[in-house]
Amino acid sequence: MQDVLIRTLEKVELRQPILVEGLPGVGNVGKLAADYLRDQLGAKPLATFYSKFFPPQVYVSEAGIVRLVSNDLAYWKAPAGTPHDLLVLGGDYQGISPEGQYEITERVLDYCAQLGVKQVFTLAGFAQGRVVEEPKVLGAATAPALVESMKKFGVVFSRNDPGGGLIGASGLFLGLGRLFGMEGVCLMGETSGYFVDPHSAGAVLRVLSKALKVELDLTALEEKAKEIDKIAQRIHDPEQRSGEPGAAGPNAPREDLGYIG
Amino acid sequence: MQDVLIRTLEKVELRQPILVEGLPGVGNVGKLAADYLRDQLGAKPLATFYSKFFPPQVYVSEAGIVRLVSNDLAYWKAPAGTPHDLLVLGGDYQGISPEGQYEITERVLDYCAQLGVKQVFTLAGFAQGRVVEEPKVLGAATAPALVESMKKFGVVFSRNDPGGGLIGASGLFLGLGRLFGMEGVCLMGETSGYFVDPHSAGAVLRVLSKALKVELDLTALEEKAKEIDKIAQRIHDPEQRSGEPGAAGPNAPREDLGYIG
Amino acid sequence: MQDVLIRTLEKVELRQPILVEGLPGVGNVGKLAADYLRDQLGAKPLATFYSKFFPPQVYVSEAGIVRLVSNDLAYWKAPAGTPHDLLVLGGDYQGISPEGQYEITERVLDYCAQLGVKQVFTLAGFAQGRVVEEPKVLGAATAPALVESMKKFGVVFSRNDPGGGLIGASGLFLGLGRLFGMEGVCLMGETSGYFVDPHSAGAVLRVLSKALKVELDLTALEEKAKEIDKIAQRIHDPEQRSGEPGAAGPNAPREDLGYIG
Amino acid sequence: MQDVLIRTLEKVELRQPILVEGLPGVGNVGKLAADYLRDQLGAKPLATFYSKFFPPQVYVSEAGIVRLVSNDLAYWKAPAGTPHDLLVLGGDYQGISPEGQYEITERVLDYCAQLGVKQVFTLAGFAQGRVVEEPKVLGAATAPALVESMKKFGVVFSRNDPGGGLIGASGLFLGLGRLFGMEGVCLMGETSGYFVDPHSAGAVLRVLSKALKVELDLTALEEKAKEIDKIAQRIHDPEQRSGEPGAAGPNAPREDLGYIG
Repeated sequence: MQDVLIRTLEKVELRQPILVEGLPGVGNVGKLAADYLRDQLGAKPLATFYSKFFPPQVYVSEAGIVRLVSNDLAYWKAPAGTPHDLLVLGGDYQGISPEGQYEITERVLDYCAQLGVKQVFTLAGFAQGRVVEEPKVLGAATAPALVESMKKFGVVFSRNDPGGGLIGASGLFLGLGRLFGMEGVCLMGETSGYFVDPHSAGAVLRVLSKALKVELDLTALEEKAKEIDKIAQRIHDPEQRSGEPGAAGPNAPREDLGYIG
Repeated sequence: MQDVLIRTLEKVELRQPILVEGLPGVGNVGKLAADYLRDQLGAKPLATFYSKFFPPQVYVSEAGIVRLVSNDLAYWKAPAGTPHDLLVLGGDYQGISPEGQYEITERVLDYCAQLGVKQVFTLAGFAQGRVVEEPKVLGAATAPALVESMKKFGVVFSRNDPGGGLIGASGLFLGLGRLFGMEGVCLMGETSGYFVDPHSAGAVLRVLSKALKVELDLTALEEKAKEIDKIAQRIHDPEQRSGEPGAAGPNAPREDLGYIG
Repeated sequence: MQDVLIRTLEKVELRQPILVEGLPGVGNVGKLAADYLRDQLGAKPLATFYSKFFPPQVYVSEAGIVRLVSNDLAYWKAPAGTPHDLLVLGGDYQGISPEGQYEITERVLDYCAQLGVKQVFTLAGFAQGRVVEEPKVLGAATAPALVESMKKFGVVFSRNDPGGGLIGASGLFLGLGRLFGMEGVCLMGETSGYFVDPHSAGAVLRVLSKALKVELDLTALEEKAKEIDKIAQRIHDPEQRSGEPGAAGPNAPREDLGYIG
Repeated sequence: MQDVLIRTLEKVELRQPILVEGLPGVGNVGKLAADYLRDQLGAKPLATFYSKFFPPQVYVSEAGIVRLVSNDLAYWKAPAGTPHDLLVLGGDYQGISPEGQYEITERVLDYCAQLGVKQVFTLAGFAQGRVVEEPKVLGAATAPALVESMKKFGVVFSRNDPGGGLIGASGLFLGLGRLFGMEGVCLMGETSGYFVDPHSAGAVLRVLSKALKVELDLTALEEKAKEIDKIAQRIHDPEQRSGEPGAAGPNAPREDLGYIG
């Protein structure tokens, strides 16, 4: 069996496409942001990546239909005036072994290189271990010029964070991407690390929207963030919880807070 | 060494064959059901799959003869009037790593595709974490039409179960099977998850028998189920145990309850 | 890098050679027996097997010279009248992953098949979890005729042992060997499982010597067994230990008892 | 994806080059020594080795620029009169699995063999589990003649150390190197095993400098060693710590002592 199986759903020609990656990880920030971007833009499914480096698992829909876990690439054709078409990579998992991470990332990059991708944005969360009211967006990039241009959009390049480097897909798409001649930026939304964090995902998307010159309506994401804030508050504030009749039981809100929503 | 070594024992032509898979897993329900099906039908050995993704282990028969662990495919030629011949896959183990699960499943599916298989039934247990008196059979499928037809046989498609999807061979045969153009259904017998459960296997086989239009005599399986019920009762009911002279010692019944019988 | 690197030291023609395998394992019985057999016969080095499935390790001799861990094949040309030349496989490790066990065993068997091997003896220990005064030799084989012929040499084929089958090289050489058309026997010396056990290795070799019609002087092995018995007794019998002036310190005897001597 | 990706930065012709390897490990002695050697000689970057057997990780510089983890080879052209050019291998990690260790080492050795390398020095630490005031340099080698010549430079070849052999790159470069026809020496600086140890790295470099007939100014390394000694003393001597106003907080010195500086 091949390490990665690719199913292409459509043949497309893209104009200077940029790849945006967001897979499950810290606070699920990257995945939330990439999925939201895809949905808001109405990006269309382009290719599915299956791999023996994912868990041997299918998801079952509410209607009882199975779907093998995968990573998925969608494309968006930019309107006239917007310079770059987009490719958005999301999915159920990152590769579950170090070797698998490399194999899958390399295959996706190779696929994207053939579509003409020369620039990559990777989206991720940065765990601060404490509640973050106003999440900053931290950055890392493949070239000094990119660092400078990102600073203009409010991205923070900190001398100390991330101290140990980036582990996982968000770093690897940049590191391996360089070997494909791609430039790239990682945008990391600050987050507690304890909950899924649409608020942080919104902060990341605000920067990305400016960098890509693509308008995004973040209302729905902020609504979701407010809901989770309320749930989190109820969990941490027993008085409010008991005083609120009909509050969802302990299972329900926790489910909403679940890491892989 | 090849990832999977296949030894074909016989060359056969099959009529619209359907694959039934049942390997060790929760409550050993799938394996019990597949082995019983094979024995009841008198299905004949067709092929043996060895793999470096199984444990490096041989079993020794009571006569002292070794046998390398494997998965095994048997075939059954249906009588005139029954539309589908059957292939039954059983075995000692599922692949012991995620990668191995994919490799072995892909090779078995490829082998079955060459025999003309277009439909798959996978048999499994669904752990409820509590004693289940009347096990329901839960389902998942590759297409809405299959969901509907299975409901007619009493299969339950629950909105919430299995919540996290299916992990292991029973899900993977459906998920990867789709890439081979195969349709499929997973039948999951409810079970406690603590013991091997022939009772649950019987529930699964009753559904399968209707779906395949194959008559099965389940008497021997239900006998086995009753024996295990008695043993389980003795273990959980000390009074009855002490009051019963000549009861088997603690080792004997537990052995009968052993996961891999 | 190839999974297994083979260095052949000499080109030989062998007469109906039989492979004897003894690698580290329970009580180190198999390795002790195979190494002793090789030394007693004066078998000559034939081939070295290196593999990425062994630990990334070199041993350093007392003279300071490094040697990469390996498995090693030696050959012995039988005198006229003895029907079979011998190949003896020993080594530092078994493969350290299930996959590695398969890969290495398959390559060694393939190598031996090319030398004309049609029969294999694997030597191992069988852990009883208690001190064994007079170790029996348990057996398992690939064919009923072999079981019968081994019984004549005192080998015990027990209905219950080994219950869960054989895990590791000793079983795998038989199980995979069948796929190479080789017949084989596993000889398992009973042992406590707590110490290296030359006494058990001696029991195994006494059977092997009859089966191969090769005379072996086991004096040196029995000497070693007696030494270890004395050390074990001192450890378990504090009075005798304190009453014996000049007894080796606690480190020295334990070292002699070390698993990988 | 290839197991190891090699990027060559420059095409060079080298005169009887010797490979010096120093990767992260016990006390980081090998890496400290190799990096210092490279910097002192002003060795130039020659090739970068990326691998799926390293962690899926990028490091981020203080300026925010990412770099994929790697091993790196630098070269130094010796002045007239010094017989051997040098290749120095350093890097962020050793392979993170046994298999990966073999794969990466084999590829680096193959690359170096093509550059004409016939001799290897591997640098490492040897953990004594206690503070070592005057670290000796222990040795292991591929040939008796090398043992003798190293003894002249003060290297200690101990009958008992290293008892269990060498695990990891320092041993493997010698063990696999022999299969490439290379001779080699491992130089192990005694160290506690608890801290990074530039002092031990200095001891190793003093031997290496004699063996290679290359002069090295070790001042900067010894300065670093003194700093770490002071920090270690403060940590172990609370009185001195409290008596010293403005002492760095507990985080700062520990950071300096961090294993991977």
